[in-house]
Amino acid sequence: MTQKLIKNAAGRMVPTVINGEQHVPFKGVGKHKPAGKRAAPPLATCADYPSDGNKVKNGLKAALKACGLKDGMTISSHHHFRDGDLVMNRVFDAAAEMGCKDLRWFPSASFPCHAPLIKHLDSGVIHHIEGSMNGPLGDYTSEGRMHGTAILRSHGGRYQAVQDGEVHIDIAVIAAPTADPFGNATGDRGPSACGLLGFALADSQYADKVIVVTDNLIDFPCIPWQIHGNYVDYVVVMDKVGDPEKIVSGTTRITKSPDRLLIAEYAARFVAEAGIMQDGFSFQAGAGGTALSFAIFLAEMMKAKNIKARYVRGGSTQYLVKMLQEGLTDYILDGQTFDLDGVRSMRENPNHVNTSPFTSYNYHGKGNFSSITDVAVLGATEVDVNFNANVVTHSDGKLLHGIGGWMNCLFSKCTILPIPSFRDRIPVIVDEVTTLCGPGELIDVIVTERGIAINPLRKDLIEKTRNSSLPMVDIRDLKVEVEDICGGKPAPPKTEDKIVAAIKWVDGTVIDCVRQIKK
Amino acid sequence: MTQKLIKNAAGRMVPTVINGEQHVPFKGVGKHKPAGKRAAPPLATCADYPSDGNKVKNGLKAALKACGLKDGMTISSHHHFRDGDLVMNRVFDAAAEMGCKDLRWFPSASFPCHAPLIKHLDSGVIHHIEGSMNGPLGDYTSEGRMHGTAILRSHGGRYQAVQDGEVHIDIAVIAAPTADPFGNATGDRGPSACGLLGFALADSQYADKVIVVTDNLIDFPCIPWQIHGNYVDYVVVMDKVGDPEKIVSGTTRITKSPDRLLIAEYAARFVAEAGIMQDGFSFQAGAGGTALSFAIFLAEMMKAKNIKARYVRGGSTQYLVKMLQEGLTDYILDGQTFDLDGVRSMRENPNHVNTSPFTSYNYHGKGNFSSITDVAVLGATEVDVNFNANVVTHSDGKLLHGIGGWMNCLFSKCTILPIPSFRDRIPVIVDEVTTLCGPGELIDVIVTERGIAINPLRKDLIEKTRNSSLPMVDIRDLKVEVEDICGGKPAPPKTEDKIVAAIKWVDGTVIDCVRQIKK
Repeated sequence: MTQKLIKNAAGRMVPTVINGEQHVPFKGVGKHKPAGKRAAPPLATCADYPSDGNKVKNGLKAALKACGLKDGMTISSHHHFRDGDLVMNRVFDAAAEMGCKDLRWFPSASFPCHAPLIKHLDSGVIHHIEGSMNGPLGDYTSEGRMHGTAILRSHGGRYQAVQDGEVHIDIAVIAAPTADPFGNATGDRGPSACGLLGFALADSQYADKVIVVTDNLIDFPCIPWQIHGNYVDYVVVMDKVGDPEKIVSGTTRITKSPDRLLIAEYAARFVAEAGIMQDGFSFQAGAGGTALSFAIFLAEMMKAKNIKARYVRGGSTQYLVKMLQEGLTDYILDGQTFDLDGVRSMRENPNHVNTSPFTSYNYHGKGNFSSITDVAVLGATEVDVNFNANVVTHSDGKLLHGIGGWMNCLFSKCTILPIPSFRDRIPVIVDEVTTLCGPGELIDVIVTERGIAINPLRKDLIEKTRNSSLPMVDIRDLKVEVEDICGGKPAPPKTEDKIVAAIKWVDGTVIDCVRQIKK
Repeated sequence: MTQKLIKNAAGRMVPTVINGEQHVPFKGVGKHKPAGKRAAPPLATCADYPSDGNKVKNGLKAALKACGLKDGMTISSHHHFRDGDLVMNRVFDAAAEMGCKDLRWFPSASFPCHAPLIKHLDSGVIHHIEGSMNGPLGDYTSEGRMHGTAILRSHGGRYQAVQDGEVHIDIAVIAAPTADPFGNATGDRGPSACGLLGFALADSQYADKVIVVTDNLIDFPCIPWQIHGNYVDYVVVMDKVGDPEKIVSGTTRITKSPDRLLIAEYAARFVAEAGIMQDGFSFQAGAGGTALSFAIFLAEMMKAKNIKARYVRGGSTQYLVKMLQEGLTDYILDGQTFDLDGVRSMRENPNHVNTSPFTSYNYHGKGNFSSITDVAVLGATEVDVNFNANVVTHSDGKLLHGIGGWMNCLFSKCTILPIPSFRDRIPVIVDEVTTLCGPGELIDVIVTERGIAINPLRKDLIEKTRNSSLPMVDIRDLKVEVEDICGGKPAPPKTEDKIVAAIKWVDGTVIDCVRQIKK
């Protein structure tokens, strides 16, 4: 199929029709204003629901049937169980047994544990996936084997797409570590505890039909009700909804690489020297090794200077939990828990607060939390000399990573990417990113082991760190230095014409796309 | 104006056009199925909101202006401050100063403190009120002085009307005891603490524009965020939003009347003897004197028999809080706090849980909490021999009371009305209620000082209490007995033809109406 492409405001050639539906090309940051109204699910009436509140159905297939599952429908799910999800493979096995075709799977992310779905993609039970694809499903997509085109969105973009009616969910499947027969559900307790269920919030609010699947059914009411049973149609009990070993790990690994530790330390020192680290400030750092080390360095500096944050944003780990317990922050505002300490803290500590893509990230709302946050520390696979960044592919063009909350966090008051200047002798600082995920105007600081580059747009940060002892560099000089070390620029990706995935900006416009990898 | 009336399924003559809009006559319990979709507010974008999250506007008038206030708009508010509200009079003063006309005020309830609004009703700034009217505004309405027709809804019916798009809120004003500049707000703390803000939930979710008004602005984030700042457009700071003395009273009065105490005791014994009071059961009782005494009697009986409830529903008072503290219930599921103990408990005890008309009462949802509850103990102004009940007028036909959650609670598994058989020598048990608010098929038991009448539809309850020592009576015999005592039936109300208020059933249909009182 030949696809008509047009050049978007970032200079990227993108399709306007994806999977037969119209999409708007990226117009620039803050330039696309949505028209119209929020999506509106059908009205329900209590007259059609059991008055004793017992919505339990005997098995997944019975629930899917009661929801009216049919060809071409969209089934959604959340990824709070990460690689430990035991539900979605069974949902699509059931759909296959029911003879369904051309389904769209709309997860908030998929993981290697979902590799068994490849057979349903091959057979046409699933037409395509919209959501982050880690591991085998990413490979499958990159190889051009999926019937439809993947669409990747940020966590906030996923909420926006559902809220705006761009993605209509027919059936939401919400796996829940604890639930009651009415459908109230929580992630913070039960044998498969995963902390919270915020990624399923949009699904619960906007899907036509909602199924809660649990392995820990308790008497009404399930408190807290992270998911309101008032949105739920059916409850299904399974033996085991998640593999706790793979949902959370007891410990999250901090980096041991001397280079990464140096980068993390530079980033923390930058935050201090730029005057961001002050009483009442806020930060968000991911759960990757470098970001964790950054948080640990920063916590030490905060302790030394007797500085307390107003809030830190999770993904939470034992390190953030320790900060909360030690009084280094008033609150953790958490979007997902990455380890058992995070789960326990969210369950037990009222100052460890459950957030969602609605509160934190949705760009088509009346503001969100990410733009209020003082500093966001994020990863990237590539950054170019105009501070544009890539987070879904490497320079080989292969679809490898999801977007997560990354795009949304770029709206923080200061966005810092602590990254190695090269990986496996391939430059990370490049002339132009392979896939554009983050426009340079939103990325303020690049921290590498060879120095720190500040975006020229941020004259205030340049001014504040003018007398810093940190190694400041020009990003263009850094690029040349790295090319010297690596023996040149990265080889261009070997791709076919076929577009296998579209990358959505936070406002629903298409910022870039990913092509099929040549065999 | 002559109004075309038609007879609804309850035999009541009701208008089909109210304030120029079409309304559906009552069709019978569970008979009216809504078509169409939920209301959909306009999409917003973060690009139009301050990126630092500071939505503070300098004063009410500036905020109303920024919201685009104009003639004919609907302004909504909640009544968690009850008779201590200091905000809404100032809102309409501001609207009057801005020269606005024909506004609709859509409060969840109004109180005597809102008497100053009569001047704005007289002058045409406010066209009419939709919401409960207690005191002077009820009189004003009954006298036929309001330009438009009042519409009274239950708490659940108010949520339903907003959700269904029957009532479009242009501007919601949410007075909040504590809020942050982003608009996150809570009722459980601050100098004007009122416990929770659940009555404003629909307003926040569905209004075009939302203003939070507070006298206690704190740094972001306001935790808990009972109202999400993500729905809020502007924040206004006022000196004082509520008069704590009138918001809550330190102690809630239990009845001292021997008759009322006897009624309360009968009701509690009935619950025990009918087998409802058993481990894991649930009940809801109001905050009136008799209902409070019922709860106290029941708690004593539970203690004696070592029985623990799964949950009790608030309106919470010190008596429910004591039950929670003493381990007589796992949870309080609370819709509003009636005293300071309730406020404190909601703030401090995670098992004292914040609910809303969405979770508890909305009939156009996928079930709600009220139908799950084992027993609801409610008041009434009149009950007729077919178990139909009235809660808004007395036999003189004057509009005196709001509906509150009363209609919604009728859906409990057992609805008990503990009422005196007569008041001021006027029978309460009558041939036909003056205003129909609750269809008899939903009302199971009438408890009076002269005996207990069970609805003949509830053969199970009749069977279970066959050998009870409680004084069981036939409601028709009771009516005759009471008429004998009072010297006859109540005099019929002296009314004009003009309809001054419509009474909405939980599904949005018109179940009855109230006429102007003859001078």
